[in-house]
Amino acid sequence: MRHTVSVLVENKFGVLARISTLFAARGFNIDSLSVSETEEPAISRMTIVVKGGDYILEQVTKQLNKLVDVIKVTDFKDTEYVERSLALVKISITKSTQNELIKLIGIFRARIEDISQNSVTVEITGDENKINAFVKTVMPYGIKETCRTGVVALGRGYANKVKEKKND
Amino acid sequence: MRHTVSVLVENKFGVLARISTLFAARGFNIDSLSVSETEEPAISRMTIVVKGGDYILEQVTKQLNKLVDVIKVTDFKDTEYVERSLALVKISITKSTQNELIKLIGIFRARIEDISQNSVTVEITGDENKINAFVKTVMPYGIKETCRTGVVALGRGYANKVKEKKND
Repeated sequence: MRHTVSVLVENKFGVLARISTLFAARGFNIDSLSVSETEEPAISRMTIVVKGGDYILEQVTKQLNKLVDVIKVTDFKDTEYVERSLALVKISITKSTQNELIKLIGIFRARIEDISQNSVTVEITGDENKINAFVKTVMPYGIKETCRTGVVALGRGYANKVKEKKND
Repeated sequence: MRHTVSVLVENKFGVLARISTLFAARGFNIDSLSVSETEEPAISRMTIVVKGGDYILEQVTKQLNKLVDVIKVTDFKDTEYVERSLALVKISITKSTQNELIKLIGIFRARIEDISQNSVTVEITGDENKINAFVKTVMPYGIKETCRTGVVALGRGYANKVKEKKND
C-alpha cells in the first residue's frame, strides 16, 4: 500500500537531513519526496510517499511527531484528496513520427515546452498513473531523458476529515 | 545566485539521507528538492536547487561526486534548460469573487482540479517566478493552503553543452 504524508516543518537548517535519516534508520523507504517553501517563508512543506501497511504509516507519523522541527503531520488515509506530480520528458522525434507524436501529446493534455530537430520536450502533469501511462505510450518513439517531481497533495474542498496529528 | 543541479543516483536505501546529511554538514542550504524514479527503476534522479556563488556550486558538485551512489552530476550553469515545478493552491471563493477568480486562473493557464462551495483548488505549472506571481495575484482572495513540488529541469534539445562531471 502507498501512503501520502504531508509534513509542515520549520524552515531550518538540517531539517531535511534529520527527517531523511530518521526514515533510513527505521527502514522506511521513501518513494517520492517534495520539499518547498510555503506562503510563510519560515515554514516548509514536505510531501512524502511511503510504501507499506497501516503499521508503517502509524510508525512514520509517530516518529515524525517526535521531531521538534515538525509542526504538523497530515495523512490522507481516510480523506479525499488531489494528488499531482509533474514530469519533463524528452522524446526523439523524426519527420515521419512527428504527426502522431504531437497527437498523442494532445490526448494526454501534455504541453510542448521545447522542440529541436530531433527531440521534443514535453511537460505532463497528473497523478502517477497518468504520467506512467504517458511514459509507456511514448516509449516506442525513444525517450532521451525524463525528470519527475515528487508528488504533492491537498485535501479536497469538502474533505474536513483530514487527520492532523501532533503529540499523540 | 541560484544553481540547479541534477543528480543521477542508484536507487538504494539511505541515499537521500547520505546526500542531505552531506549538504547539512557542509552548510549548503537546499532551496528545493525533487526525488523520483527514472525510466530505469534502479536509478533515481534528484534535482536540487542551492543558493550561493560559483564556489558553492563547485563544492556541491565535488562533494556529490565523492559519494559512491552518485552516478552523474549535471549542472545547468552554462546551458539553456527548461525548468518547471507544480503547485496546488486552494483559494477561498465566494459568489461575488468567482467570476474574476476564474478569469485570473485562465490567464495563468492554471487548471481547476476541485471546487466546493467556498474554495477552489488549482494546479499551476511553470518556472518559480510564474508560480510566485500567481500566488501573489490570488493572495487577496484568501489562500487556504498551498503545496509545491521541487523544481525539475532538462537541458534544451539543442543544448549539448550540459556539463557532466564525475570523478574530476
